[in-house]
Amino acid sequence: MPGFAEPITTLIRQLCKLPGVGEKTASRLAFFLLRLPREEVEELARSLLAVKEKIQSCPVCFNLTDVVPCEICRDDRRSDGVLCVVEEPADLFAIERTRQFRGRFHVLQGAIRPLDGVGPEDLKIRELLERLQDGKVQEVLIATNPTTEGDATALYLSRLVKPLGVRVTRIAYGVPMGGDLEYADQVTLGKAIEGRREM
Amino acid sequence: MPGFAEPITTLIRQLCKLPGVGEKTASRLAFFLLRLPREEVEELARSLLAVKEKIQSCPVCFNLTDVVPCEICRDDRRSDGVLCVVEEPADLFAIERTRQFRGRFHVLQGAIRPLDGVGPEDLKIRELLERLQDGKVQEVLIATNPTTEGDATALYLSRLVKPLGVRVTRIAYGVPMGGDLEYADQVTLGKAIEGRREM
Repeated sequence: MPGFAEPITTLIRQLCKLPGVGEKTASRLAFFLLRLPREEVEELARSLLAVKEKIQSCPVCFNLTDVVPCEICRDDRRSDGVLCVVEEPADLFAIERTRQFRGRFHVLQGAIRPLDGVGPEDLKIRELLERLQDGKVQEVLIATNPTTEGDATALYLSRLVKPLGVRVTRIAYGVPMGGDLEYADQVTLGKAIEGRREM
Repeated sequence: MPGFAEPITTLIRQLCKLPGVGEKTASRLAFFLLRLPREEVEELARSLLAVKEKIQSCPVCFNLTDVVPCEICRDDRRSDGVLCVVEEPADLFAIERTRQFRGRFHVLQGAIRPLDGVGPEDLKIRELLERLQDGKVQEVLIATNPTTEGDATALYLSRLVKPLGVRVTRIAYGVPMGGDLEYADQVTLGKAIEGRREM
């Protein structure tokens, strides 16, 4: 990029690697950072390094954590009876934000994607089945994504878990709250009708 | 945020300070960074710190630079006859990307904004007039933003510069290339008609 000082070019190139950040956004971010007080940029740099240094996978549920086992696994106010299965830690956090779920979690670290060469053995499925051995879990709530891969993974898991005498549930599909039916996609709307409930 | 390990929360809070980054985007960026190899995150952190350490304003044109004077001011293949005046370094870089301008630059470091308490004395206007003293500059091309403030600043500058016997020009207003007239806003379209040229 002509006219850019080398440290700025380097920063822009680095920022371009972030998801959803093209050259224009990267430039905008770089100029914003250049205007920021030095201490604030240092704080950002420190927090970037801190996540890589301190964060690891919980050996029980495979959530990301800075303590072992993670805060959720060690929280004795949570129920051991319901285990919510998600694909990624980000999904776990999305569910936690709702404050609607007070059981435990299990992070699969992905979904079954045959086309990308990801099979059941690449996910934390064996570890999930081990957690069901002691009979404490009465319900497995499968909250994999409402996608082809997420649904296939859910179906695969339900076939493994049901024979253990554990109830298997799936999060509901339907129209998103606050949306407009006119703009809902037809697959979602179809699922919402199929899953209609008595009022 | 419940369920988030502290270093992740800190990083998300830091990322939220970036322009155009809300909590959702910040989470998405944080999880992306968590999946990235440690070396790449370190490289990003280093380049953040490098811009704050190495970058300063060029004392001649007030562009951001890691050498003094900046690459543009020291480039003897560029013409001294035309001086392009911009509000911010980002505008200078936008013009450089076009490769249509081979003169020198002058960065005002803002525009006149009476409502925000920014007057002419807060901008690098005195320094601009000083650069015109030796008579080398024959044209000042004013490339402040096509906004009320940018236009007011352009008008203010033209009144100061014209009496020095220097030609003052303004970048053209018009419809953006590749756009559709149907979606052009009416002010821009009005300016495009007003500024029409013979074919």
